[in-house]
Amino acid sequence: MCVARTMKEHSFDDFKVGDHFESEPLKVTEKEVIEFAHKFDPQMFHLSRKRAERTIFKGLIASGWHTAAMTMRLLVQTVNFAEGAIGLGVDEMRWPNVVRPGDALTVATDIIDLRPSRSRPGYGIVRLRNVTKNQRGEVVQTMLASAMVPRRDTGSSANEQGKGQGAKAEVRRSTGTRKL
Amino acid sequence: MCVARTMKEHSFDDFKVGDHFESEPLKVTEKEVIEFAHKFDPQMFHLSRKRAERTIFKGLIASGWHTAAMTMRLLVQTVNFAEGAIGLGVDEMRWPNVVRPGDALTVATDIIDLRPSRSRPGYGIVRLRNVTKNQRGEVVQTMLASAMVPRRDTGSSANEQGKGQGAKAEVRRSTGTRKL
Repeated sequence: MCVARTMKEHSFDDFKVGDHFESEPLKVTEKEVIEFAHKFDPQMFHLSRKRAERTIFKGLIASGWHTAAMTMRLLVQTVNFAEGAIGLGVDEMRWPNVVRPGDALTVATDIIDLRPSRSRPGYGIVRLRNVTKNQRGEVVQTMLASAMVPRRDTGSSANEQGKGQGAKAEVRRSTGTRKL
Repeated sequence: MCVARTMKEHSFDDFKVGDHFESEPLKVTEKEVIEFAHKFDPQMFHLSRKRAERTIFKGLIASGWHTAAMTMRLLVQTVNFAEGAIGLGVDEMRWPNVVRPGDALTVATDIIDLRPSRSRPGYGIVRLRNVTKNQRGEVVQTMLASAMVPRRDTGSSANEQGKGQGAKAEVRRSTGTRKL
């Protein structure tokens, strides 16, 4: 098991089940909350402070998809996949508490399963649990995610000149959509 | 059952299980793909055309979280929830094929379950299935989502002066995280 805040790069073969990562905090600004809402989630509780004050939340809150995107940023920065992680899917994503401007988010990541890819020998499938909290320790998002990550030991990598475009479809076809 | 492309507003009581919605197309631009990646998913296959050409995808692809955010935009525009939809959670989100600059995405939404909220009489829980496709009809994202939506008939609404901030936590506590 390792508890890491370092920028060490991780290939599939560097992970062990039980590995735990914790991100640095990321501050949420009102400007970013509103900007994201205008582009992707134009609902009154995300769009302007004034309109949001008249809603059930009595103030501006971030879109859940904005929280998910910020979580991805913290995950990428913290786990630092050596040649990228190809997202395959997400399960049980929940937003139990709201995110407001001024909050500072941190992400804790646990590696819960590892297996070589059946269809692509140069890759492994990493299953992880992410918990995103605010500065008061309240959980604002939880999820389970699966990603395809290059192996270090096989000579294959995300830079290989391989079949390329079909990677996601191949994984899906060979393993089914429920069990990546 | 209704097949709608209109801007008619929908409260909880307007939905029926089996209702089907289809969005207009949304064009994906290279500039937006790169901008989203810099903010939220800084991995080589999302960040620049040149670096992406050397990866397994042999070209720039959108972050899965960008696809999810664009899907939310199309969903909000198309279903047009009367006083907003409060996202509670997402299950079985998959990205079976990549999204590239130049693609045009559409979202098909099916209402698969409806029930009054147990903890908040002014609200109902809508369960829906979203399928996002590109211009060739290839599925680029699927997901099941649950959202809390104000009822029309009870006098309560997202504008009520209620307990406000605890809405998500209340729903979670009363119904459990697995069965929203």
